[in-house]
Amino acid sequence: MQKRLSLNEYMNGILAGNRIILSRAITLIESQLPQDKPLAQQLLEQLLPYTGNSVRIGITGVPGVGKSTFIEVFGKTITSLNKKIAVLAIDPTSQLTKGSIMGDKTRMEELAHDPLAYIRPSPAGSSLGGVANKTRETILLCEAAGYEIIVVETVGVGQSETVVKGMVDFFLLLMLAGAGDELQGIKRGIIEMADAIAITKTDGENAQAAQNARLEYLHALHLYPTPVNGWVVPVMTCSALQNQGILEIWQTIALYAEKTKTSGFWQQNRQQQNLGWMYDFIQQTLEEDFFSDPIVTEKIPRIQSDILAGKILPVQGAKELLGSVKRTH
Amino acid sequence: MQKRLSLNEYMNGILAGNRIILSRAITLIESQLPQDKPLAQQLLEQLLPYTGNSVRIGITGVPGVGKSTFIEVFGKTITSLNKKIAVLAIDPTSQLTKGSIMGDKTRMEELAHDPLAYIRPSPAGSSLGGVANKTRETILLCEAAGYEIIVVETVGVGQSETVVKGMVDFFLLLMLAGAGDELQGIKRGIIEMADAIAITKTDGENAQAAQNARLEYLHALHLYPTPVNGWVVPVMTCSALQNQGILEIWQTIALYAEKTKTSGFWQQNRQQQNLGWMYDFIQQTLEEDFFSDPIVTEKIPRIQSDILAGKILPVQGAKELLGSVKRTH
Repeated sequence: MQKRLSLNEYMNGILAGNRIILSRAITLIESQLPQDKPLAQQLLEQLLPYTGNSVRIGITGVPGVGKSTFIEVFGKTITSLNKKIAVLAIDPTSQLTKGSIMGDKTRMEELAHDPLAYIRPSPAGSSLGGVANKTRETILLCEAAGYEIIVVETVGVGQSETVVKGMVDFFLLLMLAGAGDELQGIKRGIIEMADAIAITKTDGENAQAAQNARLEYLHALHLYPTPVNGWVVPVMTCSALQNQGILEIWQTIALYAEKTKTSGFWQQNRQQQNLGWMYDFIQQTLEEDFFSDPIVTEKIPRIQSDILAGKILPVQGAKELLGSVKRTH
Repeated sequence: MQKRLSLNEYMNGILAGNRIILSRAITLIESQLPQDKPLAQQLLEQLLPYTGNSVRIGITGVPGVGKSTFIEVFGKTITSLNKKIAVLAIDPTSQLTKGSIMGDKTRMEELAHDPLAYIRPSPAGSSLGGVANKTRETILLCEAAGYEIIVVETVGVGQSETVVKGMVDFFLLLMLAGAGDELQGIKRGIIEMADAIAITKTDGENAQAAQNARLEYLHALHLYPTPVNGWVVPVMTCSALQNQGILEIWQTIALYAEKTKTSGFWQQNRQQQNLGWMYDFIQQTLEEDFFSDPIVTEKIPRIQSDILAGKILPVQGAKELLGSVKRTH
């Protein structure tokens, strides 16, 4: 393992925008080693005053929607405006396959070599909650390193979207124009989270289908209530291949930032996310501690099978497990 | 307070279908008194072999959709088929207003006097989780008392739908035909939970609007993936006033029961719900115990305001709280 730097070395390196030291700091906060945790915590605490000044964007979409290509062109658009962008990933599946969606070296090659861009693969972790926590901390480190736009990428399936929604300012849903059942494969709740929908690959033969899909989505969104912040969710079209519509998406996000900062929603949302982070962390720690208790671990298989067989009441099983562990001051 | 019966008196009364004893048993399980808990637990454990034989139906819809009227006519339809029906309510708002949605004495008056029907208002409780737990136990008591159809009613706002979805076999969403924005006021995620949508008040001048709304909903549902159990969610129309379409809704539910029992989905769903119940109860108890700890209670206001002010990291606050309480065997 690489030698750890001192707190000051990490601090100064990050504040100077040194990417190598930023990477090493992220590795430090991702570390599962108990001896790394105090330093990681101290570093985050000291960097806290330098955080918060980015636009945090969540991007999701089903596999095949062209997420990498989109993010690459989106990122180049940002850097061409002379702004710094960091791309992080939340990918709970990478824990299973050991093949992170961001681990693919051929992805975003051009962006990866852009001096204004920083790309970081998904952290390893035993639970989505753990991964989320590390990603939240990585956002703070990137902000302290001067990244003005931070993209958190997630695959468009499962629970990770909810987690990402809870850590970003703007949630962008990428969709494919298809024939017919437009929302196939996207969980309905994900549509609800979107601050904008962008239909990708709007080029060549796909152009007309994309326009039709746009109307379909607008219709579907129209059926739902307007979000509490008063923002009307736009449905946009874009082509990463032809670099069309990408700048407009960034402009839309910038407009959202401007409007919600003026209304105060931006700040309120961040504050609520921070409180949510605290409660998530507590809930997660309580459960992790409980379910990693050796007595609980030993009893669970029998209790689960008794419940599945209808032999005992769920509450009976729960009480037996809860009774195994006592809490004191 | 009314004198408690013995375990055997409760047992025999419930198994004989005695409504007065059933009511007293529900009061016992709803009791917050520590001395009532062992008896309540014993009773549930002993009744377990007599439970599970009902069709559990969740019904939701926004205020004004005509839920009470619908349930009254639906209930009378069930009893006219010589089947016993119990109606329970989950109503987290009633804790605040002290005016339970089921407490209104004029509601479902006819059904309330039907010897084959049993109506029970929402239990009091400090949390939705607690209320849900009591409702799950009440379902079991009603099943042991021979009720073949159990309706769990909830208001169409907030989190209670998710909770009800986790304890029923079939989830029915009542909707109003309106002009334009049809899904207004219903959270999008609730549409996703529905096993059927019924448009109420399809009578008189409303009949045409209801047919239009039906097509709108069918279109909207068509945009989403088919549920995992292969059931195609029907959109039906009904009029409680004219007693039209209500029997068809029951027949649809019965068909769903038949199909999913054959495919095995019914049983799997029940088993997963039971495991979910255990995990919910554990999570809820861990958090309740933690947040009712006097040291935690004392520290929380300062920590929350430090987080809101951006003075400390959420994880820092969480760790300070978690460090206040230790767990042992």
